[in-house]
Amino acid sequence: MTQYEDAKAGTITAQMRRVAQREHVAPEFIRGEVAAGRLVLPATRLHLAGAGGSSVTLDPCGIGRAITTKVNANIGASPVSSCKEQELVKLALAVRYGADTVMDLSTGGDLDETRRALLAAATVPIGTVPIYSVVVGRDIADVTPQDMLAAIAAQAAQGVDFMTLHAGIRRKHLGLVTGRKMGIVSRGGSLLAKWMVHHDCENPLYEMFDEISAILREHDVTYSLGDGLRPGCLADASDAAQFAELETLGKLVQRARGSGVQVMVEGPGHVPYDQIEMNMKREQALCDGAPFYVLGPVVADVFPGYDHITAAIGATAAAFHGASFLCYVTPSEHLALPTAEEVQAGCIVTKIAAHAADVARGLPGARDWDDRMSEARAAFDWKRQFELAFDGDTARAIRSRDLAGQEDYCSMCGREWCAVRISKEVTRSLGG
Amino acid sequence: MTQYEDAKAGTITAQMRRVAQREHVAPEFIRGEVAAGRLVLPATRLHLAGAGGSSVTLDPCGIGRAITTKVNANIGASPVSSCKEQELVKLALAVRYGADTVMDLSTGGDLDETRRALLAAATVPIGTVPIYSVVVGRDIADVTPQDMLAAIAAQAAQGVDFMTLHAGIRRKHLGLVTGRKMGIVSRGGSLLAKWMVHHDCENPLYEMFDEISAILREHDVTYSLGDGLRPGCLADASDAAQFAELETLGKLVQRARGSGVQVMVEGPGHVPYDQIEMNMKREQALCDGAPFYVLGPVVADVFPGYDHITAAIGATAAAFHGASFLCYVTPSEHLALPTAEEVQAGCIVTKIAAHAADVARGLPGARDWDDRMSEARAAFDWKRQFELAFDGDTARAIRSRDLAGQEDYCSMCGREWCAVRISKEVTRSLGG
Repeated sequence: MTQYEDAKAGTITAQMRRVAQREHVAPEFIRGEVAAGRLVLPATRLHLAGAGGSSVTLDPCGIGRAITTKVNANIGASPVSSCKEQELVKLALAVRYGADTVMDLSTGGDLDETRRALLAAATVPIGTVPIYSVVVGRDIADVTPQDMLAAIAAQAAQGVDFMTLHAGIRRKHLGLVTGRKMGIVSRGGSLLAKWMVHHDCENPLYEMFDEISAILREHDVTYSLGDGLRPGCLADASDAAQFAELETLGKLVQRARGSGVQVMVEGPGHVPYDQIEMNMKREQALCDGAPFYVLGPVVADVFPGYDHITAAIGATAAAFHGASFLCYVTPSEHLALPTAEEVQAGCIVTKIAAHAADVARGLPGARDWDDRMSEARAAFDWKRQFELAFDGDTARAIRSRDLAGQEDYCSMCGREWCAVRISKEVTRSLGG
Repeated sequence: MTQYEDAKAGTITAQMRRVAQREHVAPEFIRGEVAAGRLVLPATRLHLAGAGGSSVTLDPCGIGRAITTKVNANIGASPVSSCKEQELVKLALAVRYGADTVMDLSTGGDLDETRRALLAAATVPIGTVPIYSVVVGRDIADVTPQDMLAAIAAQAAQGVDFMTLHAGIRRKHLGLVTGRKMGIVSRGGSLLAKWMVHHDCENPLYEMFDEISAILREHDVTYSLGDGLRPGCLADASDAAQFAELETLGKLVQRARGSGVQVMVEGPGHVPYDQIEMNMKREQALCDGAPFYVLGPVVADVFPGYDHITAAIGATAAAFHGASFLCYVTPSEHLALPTAEEVQAGCIVTKIAAHAADVARGLPGARDWDDRMSEARAAFDWKRQFELAFDGDTARAIRSRDLAGQEDYCSMCGREWCAVRISKEVTRSLGG
């Protein structure tokens, strides 16, 4: 039984209990959300037991609107850069700096070995894009549908917790892309498009959807339905191609659930700030509340080197208006494979987006953390501020440049000019 | 005559023409917006001619909803850190990285000399908080209303283009602050509150408002009506104290205009993301469309070291919903006086917010820049991408880590995996 099937049958699993504990809600509440398809719990039986016999086991994590917004970090070597060891460093950094899940998007090095190593080391759910592993060293046109199915089955058997499968990009959608400025910017989407055009056939992942569902159900792998036609620039956002695919994804959500498989849906990409709310609402309606996993969205195209920030701005709006799951973007997006330092930067800004949105949508208890920080700030308790800060080391280092002690002020204003200190005098005078 | 008086009289000044040219709109359109009070043009006659006889003169800049969103950088030495020379470096960096105006908030060193040097070097409007200069070396309680007036007059005569004057914080508002977590976090606000409590009198800047207006009118200094009671944490946002002051500011806007003086209004601060739209609309309504100059707002309190980003998220929402002018926040906010590097970081993220909002609110031509970037990206024209990028040096450095040439891919995916390249093959196959 998958978590979804258990939930539908009224069973509260150990994993649902753990998620309830982490989110400070009742286990029955989590079960209800999973049963409704509004919350997924990506956790294969293999990873829960320790993938490949590892002593490190998965700590279950829930993704859905009813609970805190989650952050994913994409890592993985490319043919040009990095290796397994470097990617393991990135995994550790990502988790330390707020990633709730990690995707291994390796396209270089020994893919199988890197995936195995990451699964064995990860306490967070691991996601992959299985199509990548079938095109290493050969052309996508030479890959058979059975090759694709075999790759999905092999990775499911390794313990991959969720898989991006671009099953919604269909042959008939491709004509909608020709007028775009950026065309197809999804790697998986572009590979499948090339396959469809070469063979003049429908997308094999669409054709084999029920067979894939059967494999995913067996291991309780969660679908992350890929958005192969997501916009790659502001000009292409919210176009006919994007929404045609989204409509297909809505139908596949129902088919996945019909097969007992957990399912979430991927979304854009590059979207002007004013179109984000509409995009989130459309997905929630078309996909019947399936968790929306957005890739940014970045809200401007002219800031390469800072796209973790253009993405964090869009991600806050997305999480406020309907997304449950935010894929980070790093400073090297559009330019290079991220370094470990950039992975860290990407995680932190995306965590900011997730938390700001959780406060804004009034999630119970979300603001308590901020309130404790404000109290520490008003009390000039620097030690406590650094303990509460998401990245206390960085905050301490900045303050310590000028003042290393527990002074009741900082170097921004100095003691005599500190508004908080003067404000306390005023309040005392007023008898407050 | 001030720009406002000229505009009301139907005169298009040279400064209005220059702003029209910079914004790609008709001069008459700018005149109309200035006359309506919806656009200010902070430009003292002294700075336009070269402050203190300097050969560097002010290039006029407009601030209002009808044109592009503007960015301010706060610089200035504190008693703990920095000096005139370092602040001149920050001025140059701020302008290079997108600041449209700069405020000298010095509270340390030789305030008069630093202000003089910045005015002589700046092509952008310079703002100050005159009350600071009267409390150096003495207690605010010992300062007379005439001292305050003298400081305002002296700085106006130096060529300061806009002044933050906390005239809206009144004696009767102070009781509303006692229940707050953070109290008063505005330096100027806290100083005036202390003065009011000590003397048990009304705010002298409120009492002397018409005299101050006469001084500002003489030099065409623009009012930036300070928000002395802005919230200093999420918990204090949108409270009775904040909105009581805003109501007073709305009345002062009318009095300033009645005296022929240009006026804008300052706003929060720390505001949960969901309250930003309401805050912007309230200011626009209460202050009759006077340009809203927001300080952030930061949307989370637990990320010290990253408050330039929490602020950029809030600033994007603010500029989308009603603000015209964004005060940057740097990574050292709440911790220390910013370094030159942090000034640069603060400017860049705030520029992202301003541009993303300009695109989102459909400002004519705002997205053209992004479209040109997308075209360069699709053409793998790296040279052009770095030319178009807001910070091309940083973008080039990231890409050059792995690949230094004009390859038609980057190290994120490598050549064989590049979706944009594969997408082009697909489009060609489809005859597109």
